[in-house]
Amino acid sequence: MPDENEKRKKHDIAEDIMKRLSSEIEKRGIDADTILVGSLARGTALKNSDVDIFIRFSRNYERAKMERVGIELGFSIFPDATPKYAEHPYVSSVVKGTKVDIVPCYRIDFNTPKISSVDRTPLHTQYMKEKLTDKSIGEVILLKLFLRRQGIYGSELKTEGFSGYVCELLILHFGTFNNFMEHMSGLSGRLIIQDQVKEFHSPVVIVDPVDLSRNAGAAVSNDSLSILKTASKFFCLNPSEDYFYYDENENIEPVNHERGTYFLALVIERPDIIDDILFPQVHLMRRKLDEFAKIQSLPILNIFDHVEEKTVTILMEFASPALPSVEKKVGPPAGNMNVVSFIEKHIKSPDFVRGPFVENGRVIIEVRRKITQFRDIFMSNLENINFGKNLSRLKSGTSIIDNQEEIKKSYAYREFLSVKSPYLAAGKDLKK
Amino acid sequence: MPDENEKRKKHDIAEDIMKRLSSEIEKRGIDADTILVGSLARGTALKNSDVDIFIRFSRNYERAKMERVGIELGFSIFPDATPKYAEHPYVSSVVKGTKVDIVPCYRIDFNTPKISSVDRTPLHTQYMKEKLTDKSIGEVILLKLFLRRQGIYGSELKTEGFSGYVCELLILHFGTFNNFMEHMSGLSGRLIIQDQVKEFHSPVVIVDPVDLSRNAGAAVSNDSLSILKTASKFFCLNPSEDYFYYDENENIEPVNHERGTYFLALVIERPDIIDDILFPQVHLMRRKLDEFAKIQSLPILNIFDHVEEKTVTILMEFASPALPSVEKKVGPPAGNMNVVSFIEKHIKSPDFVRGPFVENGRVIIEVRRKITQFRDIFMSNLENINFGKNLSRLKSGTSIIDNQEEIKKSYAYREFLSVKSPYLAAGKDLKK
Repeated sequence: MPDENEKRKKHDIAEDIMKRLSSEIEKRGIDADTILVGSLARGTALKNSDVDIFIRFSRNYERAKMERVGIELGFSIFPDATPKYAEHPYVSSVVKGTKVDIVPCYRIDFNTPKISSVDRTPLHTQYMKEKLTDKSIGEVILLKLFLRRQGIYGSELKTEGFSGYVCELLILHFGTFNNFMEHMSGLSGRLIIQDQVKEFHSPVVIVDPVDLSRNAGAAVSNDSLSILKTASKFFCLNPSEDYFYYDENENIEPVNHERGTYFLALVIERPDIIDDILFPQVHLMRRKLDEFAKIQSLPILNIFDHVEEKTVTILMEFASPALPSVEKKVGPPAGNMNVVSFIEKHIKSPDFVRGPFVENGRVIIEVRRKITQFRDIFMSNLENINFGKNLSRLKSGTSIIDNQEEIKKSYAYREFLSVKSPYLAAGKDLKK
Repeated sequence: MPDENEKRKKHDIAEDIMKRLSSEIEKRGIDADTILVGSLARGTALKNSDVDIFIRFSRNYERAKMERVGIELGFSIFPDATPKYAEHPYVSSVVKGTKVDIVPCYRIDFNTPKISSVDRTPLHTQYMKEKLTDKSIGEVILLKLFLRRQGIYGSELKTEGFSGYVCELLILHFGTFNNFMEHMSGLSGRLIIQDQVKEFHSPVVIVDPVDLSRNAGAAVSNDSLSILKTASKFFCLNPSEDYFYYDENENIEPVNHERGTYFLALVIERPDIIDDILFPQVHLMRRKLDEFAKIQSLPILNIFDHVEEKTVTILMEFASPALPSVEKKVGPPAGNMNVVSFIEKHIKSPDFVRGPFVENGRVIIEVRRKITQFRDIFMSNLENINFGKNLSRLKSGTSIIDNQEEIKKSYAYREFLSVKSPYLAAGKDLKK
C-alpha cells in the first residue's frame, strides 16, 4: 500500500501535467478536457502504480483527428516520449520515477456505445469515485494485494486475472474482503454477478455498471478463477498476513529432485509486439505444441512457456527421449474391404516388421518408424504447427535444445521448477 | 488330405476294436452299442486325424455306472491305457501310430436334452452321414485345410476357432467352399446361420440341427472370425493352392529389426491341467496384466502369451523400462472443499516435489514416485492381479525376466516376432 507521501507526490505530478495540458488545449481551441483516471484517482492504488491521465475529446472530432491531436498534446508535455500504439495510440513517459500515460479518448455517457476502446475508462473512475467509501477503499486494496500474491491480479492477457476495476466492483457487491473470501471459498462453478438477462459464458461474469452490455470479468481465465477458489479456502481456514505480502524478487527454492525425465526447450526470437498481443500467441503456441505431442503419442508430462527479453521458450518434459523404432499401424475392421489394400501396402513395404495380426477385430501391422527422437519429430514438423501470426513468421529461426545439462541451467527451467504457485502463501504456511 | 491307404488302415483299426468291444458288451449283458464317430466316420478327416469310438449306453443306467463300465470296457481293449478325465472320462491309446479314443455316452434322440456332455456326438455323425454327398465332403476338406492354414481350425479353447462339425454345417448351408468364401469376403458384423427365434450373442451363430437350442459356433472368437473375414478377401481376389498348404514346422523367418523397446517376461510354472482349462486362464492372466499396465499408465505396446511344456510365459513389450521419478497427483476441482486436504497432505509430505498449480480447473501437485522400474512395479503388485484359479496358486513362484539378451534368445520371443499370421498364405503370396 503506498504511503501518504507517495500518494501526495503522484497527485502533484498529475495535477501539474493536467494544468499544462489544459492550457495547451485552450491554446489550440480544442473541445476537450483532462481527467485523472485509474486507481490513483479512486484511492485504491498499490505501491508503484502508474499515473493515467485521459484527454476527453468531443464526439464531433473524427477518429483520426482525435488520435493525432491527442498524441500532439502528449508530446507537448513529453517532447522525448515514444508514442505507443496498442489498439489505441497514447504517449508514455517517466516523471520522478513514476510512469505517466497520456491517453486521448472520446467523452461518452453511461450506457452509450464507446467509440474508441478506452472511452469507458473515465466513466469507471467517475462511477467509483461516487460509490467507494473510505472503508471500501481499504477492502479493495486488501483484495488487490491478495490477488497479486496469487499471481492473478491484472487483466492483461499475460495474467488473465482480475483487473483493479473488477476488484472494486467485487467489493461494492460483497461489502468486505472477508465476505468475498467466504463466498469464493464455498463457490463451485462460475463466479456470476449479474442482474440482467444478457448471457455471458466466461468463467467470471460481472456486469459493468457503466455499460450493462459489457462483462467486466471477461479477461479472467478459468485457471485464475480456480486459483482464487483454492486460495480463498486456505485463507478462510487460517487467515494470515502472509497472504498480502508480495516480493517480486522472492526466491523460491526449487526441490532438487532427479526427475527421471527428458526435456526439450524450443526457443524462438521474441517479436517486438506488446504483451497483450504476444502472450495470447505464446499461449496458442504452447497449446499447439501440446496438441501435436499428444497426436503423435509422445509421452508429454509438462509444457511450460517462459518469455524473456529477447526470447520465447517452450519447455517440454517427456517420460522418455524417443518413440520405439516400431510402429503399430491399425487397419480397418476385418469386415471392411479396405483391409486388403491396407495389408498389401504395408506388407510390401521395405519398412514391414511384423504381422498382420488381429487385435479387437482390427488388422494390425508393425512397421519401422523412421523418426524416433522427439527432437527430430518436432524439428521435422515445425511447419505444420500453428505458432500464431507473429511467432509463425519467426519459425524458421527456431532452435530446439536437447542438451539436458544446458536446459537445467536455464532460467526457464528454474522458473518451471519453482512454478509460481497460486498457493504460495498457503504453502509457505503449511510447510511451517 | 489322407490317402486311401491311410483311411483304409484307420477303418480297419476301428472295425477291429468295435468288434472286440461288442463281444465284451455282450459277454457282460450290457444294454449298449458301439459307433464310429468323428471325421473318419463322415469321410471328412484330414491327415493324422484320430479314431473316435463311442459306446452308447441305454438311458436306464445311472451316470456313475455308465462311466465306470465305459472305462472298464475301454481297458478291456487297452489294458495299458491311462484313463482321461476332462469333463467326462474316457480311455485313450495309440494303435499303429494312430490315436484311438474310446468314449462312453448315453443313447439320446434328436432334439432331446443331453445327459452327459458328449451324447450329441453320435447324432452329429448320424446327421452328417445322411446329409453329406461325396462332393460336399471334398468341399468340407478344403474348408478345413484353409482354416488350419490360418490357425483357426479347431474349437478347443486354445484356438477358439471352427470345429470340424461347424465346417460341415457351413458347407451344407453354402453348398461349396467358394460360395462360403464369397460370403465371408463381403461380410461385416457377425456370421449368423439361423432360422429359429432363439437369440445367441456370439460372433458366430450356427444352430445345431440335432439340438435346435444349441449354437454350434459358440466357441469361435471374434478375432478368429476377423481372421477368416480377412483371409477370405485375399483368397477371393487371388485364389491359390498356398491357402491349403500347412506345415506345422514351417519356419517363419522373423524380421530382425532393432525395436527400440523394452521387454519383460513373466514366467510361471505350467499347472497339470488340460488345455481347455489352462488356456482360458492363460488368456485371463494376459488380459489382467494388460489391464494392470494400462491402469498404471505403463506404455505397453504388445502383450503375448506362450505356453511350453513346463512353463507359461507372458511377454510384455514397453516403450521404455521405467516411469519418471515424479508423479503428477491430480486433485479435485478447485471448487471442491477436498482441495484443502489434498494440498495439505501432499505439500507436507517428504515426497513433495513441485506445485500446487492448476491445470484444466484441477489442482496438481508433483510428488516423488518411489517404484519406477516396470519390473519392480509388477513384482510388488502380483498379489493384486488375477491369474485365474489354477495359475494364481502358482503365483508365488513367478519369475520376471528383464535381461533383454536372455529374453531375445527365448522361444517365446521368437514366436512373438514371427507371430502366426492369419494371412500367412496371403502374405507369402504378396511378398513374391
